[in-house]
Amino acid sequence: MSGVTLLRHLDAGLPARVAESQQAVDGVATSNAEFHEWFTERQAQQRQDVRRVDLDALAGWSFDPRTGDLRHHTGKFFSVEGVRVHSDFGPVTAWSQPMINQPEIGILGIALREIGGVLHCLMQAKSEPGNVNGVQLSPTVQATRSNYTRVHRGAAVPYLEHFREPDPRRVFADVLQSEQGAWFYRKRNRNMVVELEDRVDAGPDFRWLTLGQLQALLRVDNLVNMDARTVLSCMPFGTADDARGALHTQPEILSWITRQQAEHEITIERIPLDDVEDWSRTPRAISHRAGRYFSVIGVDVSSNSREVAAWSQPLLAPHGIGVVAFLVRRFDGVLHALVQARVEPGFVDVVELAPTVQCTPENYEHLGSAGAPPFLDVVLGASPDRLLFDVELSEEGGRFFHARSRYVVIDVGDEIPVSTRPDYRWMTLPQLTGLLQHSHYVNVQARTLVSALRGLS
Amino acid sequence: MSGVTLLRHLDAGLPARVAESQQAVDGVATSNAEFHEWFTERQAQQRQDVRRVDLDALAGWSFDPRTGDLRHHTGKFFSVEGVRVHSDFGPVTAWSQPMINQPEIGILGIALREIGGVLHCLMQAKSEPGNVNGVQLSPTVQATRSNYTRVHRGAAVPYLEHFREPDPRRVFADVLQSEQGAWFYRKRNRNMVVELEDRVDAGPDFRWLTLGQLQALLRVDNLVNMDARTVLSCMPFGTADDARGALHTQPEILSWITRQQAEHEITIERIPLDDVEDWSRTPRAISHRAGRYFSVIGVDVSSNSREVAAWSQPLLAPHGIGVVAFLVRRFDGVLHALVQARVEPGFVDVVELAPTVQCTPENYEHLGSAGAPPFLDVVLGASPDRLLFDVELSEEGGRFFHARSRYVVIDVGDEIPVSTRPDYRWMTLPQLTGLLQHSHYVNVQARTLVSALRGLS
Repeated sequence: MSGVTLLRHLDAGLPARVAESQQAVDGVATSNAEFHEWFTERQAQQRQDVRRVDLDALAGWSFDPRTGDLRHHTGKFFSVEGVRVHSDFGPVTAWSQPMINQPEIGILGIALREIGGVLHCLMQAKSEPGNVNGVQLSPTVQATRSNYTRVHRGAAVPYLEHFREPDPRRVFADVLQSEQGAWFYRKRNRNMVVELEDRVDAGPDFRWLTLGQLQALLRVDNLVNMDARTVLSCMPFGTADDARGALHTQPEILSWITRQQAEHEITIERIPLDDVEDWSRTPRAISHRAGRYFSVIGVDVSSNSREVAAWSQPLLAPHGIGVVAFLVRRFDGVLHALVQARVEPGFVDVVELAPTVQCTPENYEHLGSAGAPPFLDVVLGASPDRLLFDVELSEEGGRFFHARSRYVVIDVGDEIPVSTRPDYRWMTLPQLTGLLQHSHYVNVQARTLVSALRGLS
Repeated sequence: MSGVTLLRHLDAGLPARVAESQQAVDGVATSNAEFHEWFTERQAQQRQDVRRVDLDALAGWSFDPRTGDLRHHTGKFFSVEGVRVHSDFGPVTAWSQPMINQPEIGILGIALREIGGVLHCLMQAKSEPGNVNGVQLSPTVQATRSNYTRVHRGAAVPYLEHFREPDPRRVFADVLQSEQGAWFYRKRNRNMVVELEDRVDAGPDFRWLTLGQLQALLRVDNLVNMDARTVLSCMPFGTADDARGALHTQPEILSWITRQQAEHEITIERIPLDDVEDWSRTPRAISHRAGRYFSVIGVDVSSNSREVAAWSQPLLAPHGIGVVAFLVRRFDGVLHALVQARVEPGFVDVVELAPTVQCTPENYEHLGSAGAPPFLDVVLGASPDRLLFDVELSEEGGRFFHARSRYVVIDVGDEIPVSTRPDYRWMTLPQLTGLLQHSHYVNVQARTLVSALRGLS
């Protein structure tokens, strides 16, 4: 061992390489013109037929006669079950609802390669049955465990081997992140960013793009899919060790989060779907009696571009279009976003950091003005010149049918003070980036907006 | 706002202040001689009578007629329930067992004060019914939520106010940490370190001690209690940003942990205590049929030093004395400990980092040599000159009856290689300290050994 050091240090050059890719607004591997031509061609090429069918006509799926839960005959993929929630806060403190239970952890991965000295991401044109527009831009790999262990007996997932047995020294991000805590029971996926050393080529459904190109594409409605956005948020940008300071130090932020977790009392009980109150099942859908929130519907899918040519599945179809917004403000020149410590029943650890506003406004109308989410009025009333980002984006089309939200970043001024409400804090982008190295901190909607903020700060 | 900066930075001087207190081996506020005199006197002064009683004679507690769960009539404190575990790894892949369910999050807090320019910790002489020796040295505050919201209608918890509404700028650690995942279902406590600015005096059951004094006391059998040890492990010592390097970078460690979490399949189902297999209930105890693991027993307690003068409660009485050990080795002069990614059914997030060895050897005897925990032979066969730390310490005496383990740190050489098993990694002390800022990473047994390692590196 003498003379050869075994000990290693963080690659100090990595944040600079990431920043350089972020500044490359036209690609080295793929020009913007080539991208758009390819993507249009892929949209035409990938044919997908999605047909609404009755729930009890879904091939391979059935309602458990004892519980009413909707399950696949293999016990794999996911199921639709019920949960009952009791809490000691908020305008509604007790309710039950259907939820998707998908205990398996899948892989969402982006492969990186240096091309012409600039880091590029291998991105995929992928169709999903719930997408409003068929094809969206997806990560290199987007695979459930059922998917990659081939429960469906379909084709292999391309590029998966780079994520299952990566060189540990080339893994730049690898973290379990939550997904929609209002719709999923404790669902998490493994978000991975891996640099490839070998020359790996892009297949017909894939292209190498810089972070700068992806940043521009994020501003196109319903183009960059949710899975791509969440992995991009975990890229190793500069973190909280940045010397620029913030309104609150990182230990103060951690203490505030701990307090929210310790002082909220909430119990989440899994119950049979049949026992969920205020929801009813018809042959066509499982829906809320007042028409709020979402319905569970069934679809038959056929596709010429997926591992399996045809299948049936339930999808969760939200009602209304969501509003997801960060209010941002510069303090001493440093951009801060107003972050909410939010309880969602499907989180593993009860509280995660969420955007300032995250709601579907129609779902709150019956509560009157006292029940309206804080700061929603600021978002809905913002003048256009304050909208730094305003794009309609989709949630995962493999589970959600036409689930769209308006993602907004609003530049606010002194009208929003330093101290607002106890469950909100101003945080910097490097602080959020630091927390994104770990599970349980930043929810999926906030992760999309973190990606958007990187184009602004 | 002009001219006044709102932005703040981490207190760069804090690690140095902590290190200085660690070096102060005799106190400024309390000399070692004074400490021992006071502690001996407290042991004589605090009288506690603990009397074993039948489980159905426990005042305020009863078995739920439907489930057999053992509960307090208020529904508060804790209950003894069942869990059923299925996993895809380990020598035993399916079992059921009793577990303590205590969903409330309590506060374990140490108050700091600078005395004579050196940081001191306010420590308490506190008796607990399960302690082998009555009084042990405890943190400033050790309070369940039932405790501090006074479900028991007893006296107020001293010094609690400093932890419930602290100055955010003086909170040096504030993190939810797990407790024994083999005995508790998802139990976590809030570990807090708070500096007081006012002159706060030590009451008769309290003394101000330096970290160096506590380090020495940790080497005394059954003196520093588990709650004190876990809070001490969360002290803001220098972290992974240390320039000394390690065998694996922090992103590699995080990726390894993520992989363990993603690739282990384990389901933990809460079941009625009556449905637990291989355990039986007699008037005296709930016990495993082969006498392994632990029993649940009942005690009547009377005390002259607690918030309530007399009460009854169940306690979990482990069988045998545990062995908890870190194998340590220097690589290029930097101390590394061999850390295990361990699955325990009571963890919120399935896997946490544990000591190299953590077991009660008798519980493995029926499995034969193939079922013996890895590295146990190294621990049991270590020559005395390699034992850097070897102390018998107790687990929480408020829930566990005479639960003792031999905590050991063993200096190993080349016989343990750089790469061992896929679920073990060599990590430095600053790496562990960095992870201790967050939940879900370092289990309670490893936290005790982290405190011990700080006296060695």
